[in-house]
Amino acid sequence: MLEQIREPSDLKKLNVRQLKQLAAELRDEIIQVVSDRGGHLSSNLGMVELTLALHYVFDAPDDKLVFDVGHQCYAHKLLTGRRTAFRRLRQRGGASGFPQAEESEYDCFTAGHASTAISAALGMVRAREIMNDDYDVVAVVGDGALSGGMCYEALNDAGRSNTRMIVVLNDNAMSISRNVGAVSKYLTGLRQSRSYRAFKRGVRRGLEKIPGVGMPVFGFLEKLRDAVKSLFVDGKFFETLGFRYIGPIDGHDIKHLIRVLKRAREDNEPVLIHVVTLKGKGYRPAEVHPDQYHGVAPFEVESGESRKEKHALNGRIAAAQLSDMADTDVRICAVTAAMSGGTGLEVFEQAHPERFFDVGIAEEHAVTMAAGMAAQGMKPYVAIYSTFLQRAYDQIAMDVCRNALPVTFLIDRAGLVGADGATHQGVLDLSYLRQLPNMIVAAPRDVRDLKKLIALSRTVDAPMAIRYPKNGDDMGPGIQTQGEIRLGKWELLSAGEDVMMFAVGRMVPLAMQAAIELLGKRVAAGVADARFVKPMDEEMLLRQARSAKLVVTLEENAVAGGFGEGVLEVLAREGVSVPVMTLGVPDRFIAHGTVQQQLEASGLSANAIATRVLERFQSIAKEA
Amino acid sequence: MLEQIREPSDLKKLNVRQLKQLAAELRDEIIQVVSDRGGHLSSNLGMVELTLALHYVFDAPDDKLVFDVGHQCYAHKLLTGRRTAFRRLRQRGGASGFPQAEESEYDCFTAGHASTAISAALGMVRAREIMNDDYDVVAVVGDGALSGGMCYEALNDAGRSNTRMIVVLNDNAMSISRNVGAVSKYLTGLRQSRSYRAFKRGVRRGLEKIPGVGMPVFGFLEKLRDAVKSLFVDGKFFETLGFRYIGPIDGHDIKHLIRVLKRAREDNEPVLIHVVTLKGKGYRPAEVHPDQYHGVAPFEVESGESRKEKHALNGRIAAAQLSDMADTDVRICAVTAAMSGGTGLEVFEQAHPERFFDVGIAEEHAVTMAAGMAAQGMKPYVAIYSTFLQRAYDQIAMDVCRNALPVTFLIDRAGLVGADGATHQGVLDLSYLRQLPNMIVAAPRDVRDLKKLIALSRTVDAPMAIRYPKNGDDMGPGIQTQGEIRLGKWELLSAGEDVMMFAVGRMVPLAMQAAIELLGKRVAAGVADARFVKPMDEEMLLRQARSAKLVVTLEENAVAGGFGEGVLEVLAREGVSVPVMTLGVPDRFIAHGTVQQQLEASGLSANAIATRVLERFQSIAKEA
Repeated sequence: MLEQIREPSDLKKLNVRQLKQLAAELRDEIIQVVSDRGGHLSSNLGMVELTLALHYVFDAPDDKLVFDVGHQCYAHKLLTGRRTAFRRLRQRGGASGFPQAEESEYDCFTAGHASTAISAALGMVRAREIMNDDYDVVAVVGDGALSGGMCYEALNDAGRSNTRMIVVLNDNAMSISRNVGAVSKYLTGLRQSRSYRAFKRGVRRGLEKIPGVGMPVFGFLEKLRDAVKSLFVDGKFFETLGFRYIGPIDGHDIKHLIRVLKRAREDNEPVLIHVVTLKGKGYRPAEVHPDQYHGVAPFEVESGESRKEKHALNGRIAAAQLSDMADTDVRICAVTAAMSGGTGLEVFEQAHPERFFDVGIAEEHAVTMAAGMAAQGMKPYVAIYSTFLQRAYDQIAMDVCRNALPVTFLIDRAGLVGADGATHQGVLDLSYLRQLPNMIVAAPRDVRDLKKLIALSRTVDAPMAIRYPKNGDDMGPGIQTQGEIRLGKWELLSAGEDVMMFAVGRMVPLAMQAAIELLGKRVAAGVADARFVKPMDEEMLLRQARSAKLVVTLEENAVAGGFGEGVLEVLAREGVSVPVMTLGVPDRFIAHGTVQQQLEASGLSANAIATRVLERFQSIAKEA
Repeated sequence: MLEQIREPSDLKKLNVRQLKQLAAELRDEIIQVVSDRGGHLSSNLGMVELTLALHYVFDAPDDKLVFDVGHQCYAHKLLTGRRTAFRRLRQRGGASGFPQAEESEYDCFTAGHASTAISAALGMVRAREIMNDDYDVVAVVGDGALSGGMCYEALNDAGRSNTRMIVVLNDNAMSISRNVGAVSKYLTGLRQSRSYRAFKRGVRRGLEKIPGVGMPVFGFLEKLRDAVKSLFVDGKFFETLGFRYIGPIDGHDIKHLIRVLKRAREDNEPVLIHVVTLKGKGYRPAEVHPDQYHGVAPFEVESGESRKEKHALNGRIAAAQLSDMADTDVRICAVTAAMSGGTGLEVFEQAHPERFFDVGIAEEHAVTMAAGMAAQGMKPYVAIYSTFLQRAYDQIAMDVCRNALPVTFLIDRAGLVGADGATHQGVLDLSYLRQLPNMIVAAPRDVRDLKKLIALSRTVDAPMAIRYPKNGDDMGPGIQTQGEIRLGKWELLSAGEDVMMFAVGRMVPLAMQAAIELLGKRVAAGVADARFVKPMDEEMLLRQARSAKLVVTLEENAVAGGFGEGVLEVLAREGVSVPVMTLGVPDRFIAHGTVQQQLEASGLSANAIATRVLERFQSIAKEA
């Protein structure tokens, strides 16, 4: 039946029984493709009926469906003419794992970071009112994203708008790992509120038994105050924020979902529909361990076992090291924002639960909370992906750097990230951190140096960032760092009289490969590991630059504002005149694909580096 | 009596009558100093009794008082041994207008941006628990800051902590301009909740009149459901977030405040105390027009009239221009985040109220909401101060630039800002915006060019930022820009065969002054207005750089990642070998003082520029 759905309007001819069958087919397709390509499984399986109901009731693309984050848009993609592209999910040229306006007119807002949908939807609603249009706008938000402050800013603003706007809260009782915080508890209360109906009957019976009238009744009620409170507070939290609350609704009952959405569409006020879904619905392993199937590598459908070869994960290595350090240093704490699994911090949590803090999807709060801890003598480590740490830029600047507090940032998923694509690239951090006073910025070239940097960070009484990609490489005994790492010191790995390459992090092995290729072209290229982007090892930089014919900087970061420009600044300041190439990520968003493809697209593969350097070197040699 | 208070412990000897007298003296002192030096008046006058009560009950600096933003910390400064420094409020070497850890051990967290205090306080609470300490932590937050999402992230996280933590909500019924949103409405409801008691009596009488028992009573209750609801919801919103709610409390009744704070101190759970204060309390003009006395220039105490000479404000000029454009272009909207007065947008609001959106202190939401509008065909202009726009860095990157939407940022208070000091300097924006794909970054050199850039922005179908300082200068007919401004085109103002200076924004007139000084030293320096930081006018840059002996870049922005480094990158890429000086704000936080003092401290006054350029030029000449 899925084959016959070319656009959402085809759905409207189906009856509920047919929609149910379609739901099953969508699930099969999602399980098939994700097991093959990797991707977000649990959340997407939970969203199938809700997506069908949304497209059944609303008329996209005229009506706007704004998916928060987009972990939950696979069924939507399959229903909006993207079955072929979906087969190549997260591959170069295939469908993106997130809503993407370039991909389809049905994706009205490109997203990837959490908690933005209500804001974007409110903007659309306001545009509609000004333009006297009449389309509907529906924001679909997971309960996990609700821990992000932006949601409240948006609800608070929307709540006074007095106009038609629908927020669908897809409550699957967990954020990426698990849900935290008071609001999460509140939602749990609402979900369990069927018991409230039973309780209501109990109250009624209680009242019937009361012998007198008037005062005694009231007295009884007074005593029941707390009980009555919980009786009447359903949805009150959202009502305070100006939304009419409808729910909780069974998110797998298509018929009921359609009825509720139809009714909500008739409203002329902001409405929040609380839909309860089961994460992983329809795939047993994911139902049992939804967190393990949030974002997955390709796996065997039968067993649920991952098909991908295991790779050392930098995050786990960092967390293990941190946990060991914490054994003897009570000041050490770990903070994350709904990324305890992804950043490897689970290890730390198990060892030191009382010093582990997962604050939910709330990067801003995570950073300032850590600053508060540091202000009182703790040594907090904040582990957040590079792309999501962007959310806390101001807090890093003002609360950490301005206060000069020893908060250490463990920045995972730095550099090019592969299949997650444009919204998840970690290629801005070197730029936005390097510009902040008091900040130390480091990047290890392999897992050994990662450990050494973390050991060093313990002794540093200042804000510090250590950024690394997901996978950890061990560069082997040949080029192991000798001894300890010293703050602000680079390492010369090989000398070369023609070209000097200063590489950051994962670019170091690529630079070494490129150097070998260049040697084949009779260009002698040296390589230094510029592991501190700030402060720089100006002594080494100047000495090496003065004797080179060409300096090359290499970084998995935007060229604009990055390491290379910092090198240029030092050379200009010190009056060193030497040709310099700043190689890094070009000034555009890099789409999904493999990391290797993205390196190539950025001109940063070993081969591309060698080619570009050779070309420049030859043109310099010609001029001379 | 104020003279005898050297530290907060001196307060504890006083009785309530004496505290009241002290309150009056504090008010006099604050009015006196602020009328003399400028500063935040209304909010600080409202906080006097509350500050006295806090210091009376708690034992700072052992107990931690965390003031959000710090608009409200003047009485605190006066009570903590800083009377002399306070006399020089916001002057170089005098007291900062915000809490500053370097200034006093009583300022436990340096702040300046809103909505961070609960996060920082929770961090301190957690440090206390881990270290088995016993101090109290009190976050003092204005109701305006409550529109910031970070507050909810923090409340949501704190609400599950089950430990002693006090949040004092200083509710003066307005943020910087006025309060907006659903939560604000909710607080208003709470403030008026004395009526609720009268209503409660009414219900009781109603019940007494009911003839039967059982069902009829319940039916009556059912009908009263909505009424009963409002009866029991006091503080429920905060209780959902896991806080015990106490309030509303009269914020000018010292005796009552002391009693409530003492009781809250005994609790072993997170408590939110809702204190209602009158902004401007005790100074009649400020009570009547609290918004006009939020941040003020020096004024006459008698009349309340400003003593400062009027200066053209860039924000007002921009807003007037925008408002005119909106007369004929229905797509144009204006968005701000509690800065409608400061950014001049009031003019726009008056002319086009239906297209004006003040979302409260919620920069993140403001930006993404604008992106949503732009996605549906509007042309939104987001006016936010440079330093506060840092909050929305990720939203600019992901929601605006990644979506390539035509949102224009009117970035006021860019560059060095004078008396507000370190937390308010607008010296990071060129760096963090320049690194974002699709973004256009411009800075006008004077008010005429500001208007031209805004006119140009209307035709630009891309993200664009226009950044300017508070005061608008008119550079006069001699160096007016000829004709229209074209995207990405710079303007050569004067040629010079020795030195070529590329200056951004307000640095243009300073560069011209420096050029005149240099001419006196027989150095011929040309000046170009590099009004587009991105995209650069590479053609002009390369042509001029190739014929110069020294290139100088000038910007009121961090050198790291800024305009100058961008120039270095272009020159390196194109193989132009010329000495370059990148002059900008050095890599440290610049303290309060006058803008002129801050320019001097940064080596960016006309004289400092001339001196530095001359020195470098001479050393180059010597080498040649």
